[in-house]
Amino acid sequence: MRTFEIKRPDERLRPAIQDKIDNLNKPKGALGRLETLAMQICLVQQTLSPSLRHPCHLLLGGDHGIEREGVSASPREVTWQQMKNFTQGGGGVNMFCRQHGFHLRIVDVGVDYDLSAVPGIINHKIARGTRNFLHEPAMTQAEMQQAFDIGARLVDTCVGEGCQVLSIGEMGVANTSPSSLWMHLLCRLPLYRCIGAGSGVDAQGVRHKYEVLRRARNRFIELHGPRFTVEDVVRYFGGYEMVTAVGAMLQAASRGLLVLVDGFIMTACALAAIRLCPEVRPYMIFCHCGDESGHRLMLDAIGAEPLLSMGLRLGEGTGALCAFPLIDSAVRMINEMNNFRDANITKYF
Amino acid sequence: MRTFEIKRPDERLRPAIQDKIDNLNKPKGALGRLETLAMQICLVQQTLSPSLRHPCHLLLGGDHGIEREGVSASPREVTWQQMKNFTQGGGGVNMFCRQHGFHLRIVDVGVDYDLSAVPGIINHKIARGTRNFLHEPAMTQAEMQQAFDIGARLVDTCVGEGCQVLSIGEMGVANTSPSSLWMHLLCRLPLYRCIGAGSGVDAQGVRHKYEVLRRARNRFIELHGPRFTVEDVVRYFGGYEMVTAVGAMLQAASRGLLVLVDGFIMTACALAAIRLCPEVRPYMIFCHCGDESGHRLMLDAIGAEPLLSMGLRLGEGTGALCAFPLIDSAVRMINEMNNFRDANITKYF
Repeated sequence: MRTFEIKRPDERLRPAIQDKIDNLNKPKGALGRLETLAMQICLVQQTLSPSLRHPCHLLLGGDHGIEREGVSASPREVTWQQMKNFTQGGGGVNMFCRQHGFHLRIVDVGVDYDLSAVPGIINHKIARGTRNFLHEPAMTQAEMQQAFDIGARLVDTCVGEGCQVLSIGEMGVANTSPSSLWMHLLCRLPLYRCIGAGSGVDAQGVRHKYEVLRRARNRFIELHGPRFTVEDVVRYFGGYEMVTAVGAMLQAASRGLLVLVDGFIMTACALAAIRLCPEVRPYMIFCHCGDESGHRLMLDAIGAEPLLSMGLRLGEGTGALCAFPLIDSAVRMINEMNNFRDANITKYF
Repeated sequence: MRTFEIKRPDERLRPAIQDKIDNLNKPKGALGRLETLAMQICLVQQTLSPSLRHPCHLLLGGDHGIEREGVSASPREVTWQQMKNFTQGGGGVNMFCRQHGFHLRIVDVGVDYDLSAVPGIINHKIARGTRNFLHEPAMTQAEMQQAFDIGARLVDTCVGEGCQVLSIGEMGVANTSPSSLWMHLLCRLPLYRCIGAGSGVDAQGVRHKYEVLRRARNRFIELHGPRFTVEDVVRYFGGYEMVTAVGAMLQAASRGLLVLVDGFIMTACALAAIRLCPEVRPYMIFCHCGDESGHRLMLDAIGAEPLLSMGLRLGEGTGALCAFPLIDSAVRMINEMNNFRDANITKYF
């Protein structure tokens, strides 16, 4: 596998950052999560005056062979239809990118439709959808490598433009299914606790989804035994957009970027990235806890406390984008708020 | 008391709003809280295309006689020092007003210091601090009226400029104490559950605060008996900035504005406003649940589910301001997101 060289942020700056925060003109700790966010951002950027220049959002699209098993409420064609729609500016991801000044890149890494002639879609298609992991691995070793590489190169392009903050979203009908299996196998949590309604299947649909994923999991365990690797899991279940996201997260951390993690699917990608390379964790800001069953459990397994809990389950990275102003607030706090001395205020205690 | 004429938003538009939301290009309900927010805003504004023009923030400052009893970690002079500091732009409220485009009005309604010559502070001083409610009512009937009127007139000025969204913050050392008593008496919850650390007293300080407030409460009950009115409570315990906030909330609703409610103190004001005039409730958006003990309880008593839970306890309205982008996202959703038909997308279900 491509190796990612990620350094844990140097902790030696921590006391100086804490000192700056504690002398801001407020009772100690009174800005709560904004203070811990500011600390994290300062450590990642190794500075007392952080910035959030040129935030970029990667919207990665791919289809899933497992969709053929009826595990999703949405039909497969919604993936390409939405990808096209995003180029018109009317999707959820578009509004929130506009609202918060994110540069949006819409990337086809595995959509089951020819989008190569659509202006505004970056074509990195690996294949027209993954294979059906009920019967065979979702992708080959080479395809997995390709996906990691695409993620890394997309990040390099963003960094070349001056990007300091990366957020990632996905569009891929049925991709809660591989996400549930990644979670199940990487967290070793019971499968039923990792499965939810996705974009809207009913109770019977959830039971069917469970049955399909259980069979797929059993087959995987037959093949790999209990000593499977993280790569085994991500390759076997896919999808392309998810592996690309993992590559992007790892490369972003290796380039010193902050990584905004969205909902259930992106949290599964963050989980895989952390298991591949634990040093990525301090670069990640977990932005949203959605309603998808298991999301909270997976966040707990990672030890993450997301910023928002708004019941979003649209995907596309919308939860990450909606949390951005809070991150911006944290940066403004440490840069713009004056301290007790400048403000001539009696230090409270 | 000045009467506020507030009409509940006409519900007849609800089906049309719901229909517009449900036909946006997303699985039904997939934008969670943003969808319920959009519904609320559309109902308040009686439109399918809401807007958030000219958001205004009132920062109301006042001192409290009860501070003399050592119930606060901060000394009294912090109130005027911070009020002056806000005019310099370096406070928490300043950064977040700049970040989210709020017009900030800094208003002295009862600070125990002569701020009349400080540029940038609107002088509506009622008195130099309330009286000490351990021994006597915090304010007179006439002063309470004056505070309601000031709040109402401030809102009228904002409306005259085209304001559609009002947020309110406070600066007043010791004002968690009257807030706790308002909560205790208006929610009929045990006093000890309504008291917290404020800006940072320790466990012993909380016990002392409890003892002081318990004595003040007993004296109030001796005077008024168990059949006290809301006005009795707010007048007896104050403070000026809080009563002004209640007046502003009521007037804002009567003028059709959205009211963003901040942390513990502003939630106590919202509670009083609701008890005075229940029709104000649909105009309120509860923005933040802080760490102050009892805040969650008070929100539950109101039936409010705040947008954020970031551990903020700075006051000044910072929690309300930080939540504004989510409200903006809700408005963008219903205005900018395209629907299934426009986007040529198979409706999911």
